[in-house]
Amino acid sequence: MRTVTYGAACSLDGFITGPGGALDWMHFTQDVIDVMTDYMKGVDTILMGRKTWQVAQASAADGSQPSDGGLPEMQSYVFSRTLESLTDPNVKLVRDDAADFVRKLKKQSGGGICLMGGGELARSLFDADLIDEVGLNIHPVLLGGGVPMFPTPGPHVALELVDSRVISGGCVLANFRVPHRRS
Amino acid sequence: MRTVTYGAACSLDGFITGPGGALDWMHFTQDVIDVMTDYMKGVDTILMGRKTWQVAQASAADGSQPSDGGLPEMQSYVFSRTLESLTDPNVKLVRDDAADFVRKLKKQSGGGICLMGGGELARSLFDADLIDEVGLNIHPVLLGGGVPMFPTPGPHVALELVDSRVISGGCVLANFRVPHRRS
Repeated sequence: MRTVTYGAACSLDGFITGPGGALDWMHFTQDVIDVMTDYMKGVDTILMGRKTWQVAQASAADGSQPSDGGLPEMQSYVFSRTLESLTDPNVKLVRDDAADFVRKLKKQSGGGICLMGGGELARSLFDADLIDEVGLNIHPVLLGGGVPMFPTPGPHVALELVDSRVISGGCVLANFRVPHRRS
Repeated sequence: MRTVTYGAACSLDGFITGPGGALDWMHFTQDVIDVMTDYMKGVDTILMGRKTWQVAQASAADGSQPSDGGLPEMQSYVFSRTLESLTDPNVKLVRDDAADFVRKLKKQSGGGICLMGGGELARSLFDADLIDEVGLNIHPVLLGGGVPMFPTPGPHVALELVDSRVISGGCVLANFRVPHRRS
């Protein structure tokens, strides 16, 4: 079964973007590049909610990311009931129920599945017990508002710490395993 | 100047109590006792919001804590505009503006000041730039709701990581310094 990892950089008060979509608090250091490069080796699929995809698109507009928010050599899926269509062949729009779609995806052959941001999408996948790992890069800042990593109300989810260490910028990496409720 | 430390055990999604006041997710291990004992050596004053005090009172009712929620050999202050009076001589009710009161308290001689829980009280003291340190004991669980460590909306506060380490139960201790905006 393929592994679904929910990972993001977040503030100490749990936001993945600050008020007004602010991202200027993030440390994009060599440590982060190393951690991401290592993790991404095993990943071939990216899941995003609509809002996260729109942030990725905005990054693409300045040329620092591939067009349309997708990553090369990755299959990206954007979950939305409101979007009509997407143009990038590497990015597929999913308008079906997210939990049903991801349940089927996990049973197909393939590599790791990365759930990037998208607290609302994460909540629906936590509810359906489809997330296997959580990886946070906790930044030393309180943002006071914005898009939460874990929207409330949410489910009660027991976790098991796998490892934690400090990286540059005073960030705390913490990786967790999700013991499945139904296994 | 005396140091004000805002410290608490919290869930990975930032709650100090779960839905309905649940505390059954907390690991009260020897590691926690050691950390608390070491920290409390320098502390002679406790600050609590009304809700936190009422939780402490409830713990006192089972005999595991001193009466009325106070700790022996500590001066405790409970901040509330709604409570009329308290009976325990070790616990004083403060009905004045919390920021004004704490600003004066920090200028008096004495030991460390511990702000226990009370996200609403913490927010008003962060707003007034009166908190010097933040110490979290991040537990491996998502509670999905309850009393937040950092209520929103809150101020933007830059932090500096002092140290972080894993303790028993898969908990991540993280201590931060608050660089003062006006110094």
